[in-house]
Amino acid sequence: MNRADALSRLHEFDRAHRLIAHASSVLQWDQETGMPPRAVVERSEQLAALEAVAHERATDPRIGELLERLGSTSSDPRGDDSLPGLERDFLRVLRREYDKDVLLPVEFVASCARDEGLSQAAWIEARKRNDFASFAPHLSLMLDHAKEKSRLWGFGSSPYNGQLDLHEPGMDERAIATCFDALRPRLSSLVARISARPAPDTSFLDQEYPVEAQDAFGRELRTDLGFQSDRGRLDLSAHPFTTTLGADDVRITTRYEPRNLLSGLFSTVHETGHALYELGYGDDLRGSCLADGASMGIHESQSRLWENVMARSLPFWRGRYATLQARFPKQLNGVDLEAFYKAVNVVRPSLIRVDADEVTYSLHVILRFDLERRLFAGTLEVADLPHAWREGMKKYLGVEPARDSDGVLQDIHWSMGAFGYFPSYALGNIYGLQFWRALRRDLPRIDESIEAGRFTDLLAWFREKVHSKGRRSDPAELLEATTGETLSADAFIEYLERKYADAYSL
Amino acid sequence: MNRADALSRLHEFDRAHRLIAHASSVLQWDQETGMPPRAVVERSEQLAALEAVAHERATDPRIGELLERLGSTSSDPRGDDSLPGLERDFLRVLRREYDKDVLLPVEFVASCARDEGLSQAAWIEARKRNDFASFAPHLSLMLDHAKEKSRLWGFGSSPYNGQLDLHEPGMDERAIATCFDALRPRLSSLVARISARPAPDTSFLDQEYPVEAQDAFGRELRTDLGFQSDRGRLDLSAHPFTTTLGADDVRITTRYEPRNLLSGLFSTVHETGHALYELGYGDDLRGSCLADGASMGIHESQSRLWENVMARSLPFWRGRYATLQARFPKQLNGVDLEAFYKAVNVVRPSLIRVDADEVTYSLHVILRFDLERRLFAGTLEVADLPHAWREGMKKYLGVEPARDSDGVLQDIHWSMGAFGYFPSYALGNIYGLQFWRALRRDLPRIDESIEAGRFTDLLAWFREKVHSKGRRSDPAELLEATTGETLSADAFIEYLERKYADAYSL
Repeated sequence: MNRADALSRLHEFDRAHRLIAHASSVLQWDQETGMPPRAVVERSEQLAALEAVAHERATDPRIGELLERLGSTSSDPRGDDSLPGLERDFLRVLRREYDKDVLLPVEFVASCARDEGLSQAAWIEARKRNDFASFAPHLSLMLDHAKEKSRLWGFGSSPYNGQLDLHEPGMDERAIATCFDALRPRLSSLVARISARPAPDTSFLDQEYPVEAQDAFGRELRTDLGFQSDRGRLDLSAHPFTTTLGADDVRITTRYEPRNLLSGLFSTVHETGHALYELGYGDDLRGSCLADGASMGIHESQSRLWENVMARSLPFWRGRYATLQARFPKQLNGVDLEAFYKAVNVVRPSLIRVDADEVTYSLHVILRFDLERRLFAGTLEVADLPHAWREGMKKYLGVEPARDSDGVLQDIHWSMGAFGYFPSYALGNIYGLQFWRALRRDLPRIDESIEAGRFTDLLAWFREKVHSKGRRSDPAELLEATTGETLSADAFIEYLERKYADAYSL
Repeated sequence: MNRADALSRLHEFDRAHRLIAHASSVLQWDQETGMPPRAVVERSEQLAALEAVAHERATDPRIGELLERLGSTSSDPRGDDSLPGLERDFLRVLRREYDKDVLLPVEFVASCARDEGLSQAAWIEARKRNDFASFAPHLSLMLDHAKEKSRLWGFGSSPYNGQLDLHEPGMDERAIATCFDALRPRLSSLVARISARPAPDTSFLDQEYPVEAQDAFGRELRTDLGFQSDRGRLDLSAHPFTTTLGADDVRITTRYEPRNLLSGLFSTVHETGHALYELGYGDDLRGSCLADGASMGIHESQSRLWENVMARSLPFWRGRYATLQARFPKQLNGVDLEAFYKAVNVVRPSLIRVDADEVTYSLHVILRFDLERRLFAGTLEVADLPHAWREGMKKYLGVEPARDSDGVLQDIHWSMGAFGYFPSYALGNIYGLQFWRALRRDLPRIDESIEAGRFTDLLAWFREKVHSKGRRSDPAELLEATTGETLSADAFIEYLERKYADAYSL
């Protein structure tokens, strides 16, 4: 077999694996959006069966042989240096996935998938009934599975790093801790300064905002931001998410609350940010393992940036507020642009991460990072989590949940065995502002475009610099290539300090 | 390995295969109900990949070894006669499937699945644009695939029988032709006598019936008929269908037309009939290949019976008409029960099978049976189908479509490679009335129950006699066990002659 044939065979293996993975995404999407309740056990078994198939496909020994034939080894994954750069990036990612996957026995992978389905169902019930104890055994099992995976991957001495590496290649606990340690005091100080100022009037938000009108506004906005409706869907689910079922099938979900206009609106923009990334991978990556985000942090940089830096900005609302008022003429009667802008950017320590403002948000994340570190280090037991959660909330945010449903049970991630994911959100804020600073250098008139409702300049910049490249680079390389910088929270905290100094007249 | 272990292993193989098949059903359901249009090509590839996996699972040589160890051979599939009856039925069905599946190469199975997806998409477009020519190459390919399957299964000299055997085990072209030949002249004669009478007034049906109210009425009725909403869903699709995604996840679809109250209503009842069958398999069959219909004809006996014999009957509307009037007070004002009943049962030769009345319906089916026989015998070319269709419609129903969209392009079946399926609908009418006669002997007061809106007696009888048994018997055995009869169109035609003699004062 010559080299071209070997490469072509390897692409076929990769593609076959991804087709099965996307089929799993269809089942998961369905489970979250409309599956009949009693189907949950069998659905877990279906997902476990698909997971087993995907794993078999991904660990076919012929993949290992072909990688070697092309010069890709574990220590030098990019293969023969005479290959085109795109193929070398492909080999690097595939080698990395293969090396990880072959270390997991297929029975273990299938039983993890099955247990995750059941754990997620148990979490839904537990959150509904405010009953942490009923969820605790599932959470312990998720934690055991994650530790076992870390051990199999060779992270036995620092199991949390095994999880972080899944979401943020090239980043470890120490690097993230260093970055968060620099960020936390400046955030706390900003929160304190803001809290000393009079709170803006948000009373007009506490009204009935009909869900149909929320939906109509959100759909129109999503389209204007660049989401192509023939390549995706918008549905409702308990926990908003974005999922990719194929190169031309990217779906987002949101949730509307009749008395909370902002929650559904910003969820929609957040998920649209994810979806625009997924829809923007280059055609040259189509169907390959490179058609994926560079990392979860880079992914969150997109969603968080569209949600906050763009859709909570004054230029954005200058251009869009009249449309919102037209949807809610009674509710927003007499509320002027400035008052609305201030209410949208109110800073107030609160219990729920997904509803948090952009100043306190990262503190929610840092709490979860701390707890995960302790869970993996063995210095915190699952049974003690609700207490540790409340203590952490008091310490970082000065508020304390009365119910676990508003505390440790609020997020879906751990119930699905997704540990080490939370830091991505704060990293996303940080990457996002590093990108944003570079973008403003290239597009000095971006505020005018946003105010005019023209989001194409913004999207085109990200398409070129970030989206189209998919997973060709690790996050640090992508950041360096795009901004010339290494990871630093400076741009993010300076952005917050400037924006809120204005908004709150600090 | 002892016999109990062998049986248990065999059940595991069967179960693993069905989990993948149900995963495919999720993808298919999604494709029909809400997938973004541009995803169609990749979805075909996903389905092909799953089809290949399912085929690999179904043809694992260990299944063959285990079957043999349990005494199940191709000529004596039920295995050791000391095994319990349930296990012997299981062995019979599994052996039959295994023997068929091993004759199909996996590459062929996958490419059929891929081609079917594309063909279905081409059909949707062709029907929309009334363009048979653009669909013809797909249809030819579907026909080639079907013939090739028949050849591989050993039906080389009578390829149509290979297709019929898929849907109606134990039944062949000759037996069906004999039955249809007896039925056709009596149907034609009945249609002629009815057409000589004044047509009932149906003008009140030609109004706007808001889709929301249609939906509300249909959902309530579906629940009253016994469809458990925590074990299924009701959605919209271009072509109504029922699909099973798991033992507790049976979904139906319908379609509403604002100016056609009856189309959506009877589609819902029809699909509910299918769903009640799927939801009624015995717990002892759960997750096994026996949890399936005895045949497509038996399946259609359920849907057609609930739709026509039950929901187009006078007792049913005596009990339910007031509820319908309350949903459409303006539209049905001044229309009394008798007038409505007559309009619901109007007999009028027409172009579209799914909207046909129960007298002319089987003539639509017999036309399709005739055309399929000729296509498989090689005496009719795909290119000549539109012409043959028009000729057949003139001959059997005295009407002729002006557009292929209302003719040869109206049904989805051939586009998915489902040949030999159509006869099931007419067989369903026939089986249904044989069951109905037996049911009335056991439940002489069934009309009163139906009028009172109590459908539990009807459902309980079918649960016991038909649903709970799943696929344990072939249709002929099931019919014999339930009614003491062999296949005969007499009960069906006598029912029609009696009902319409009354309705039309013949």
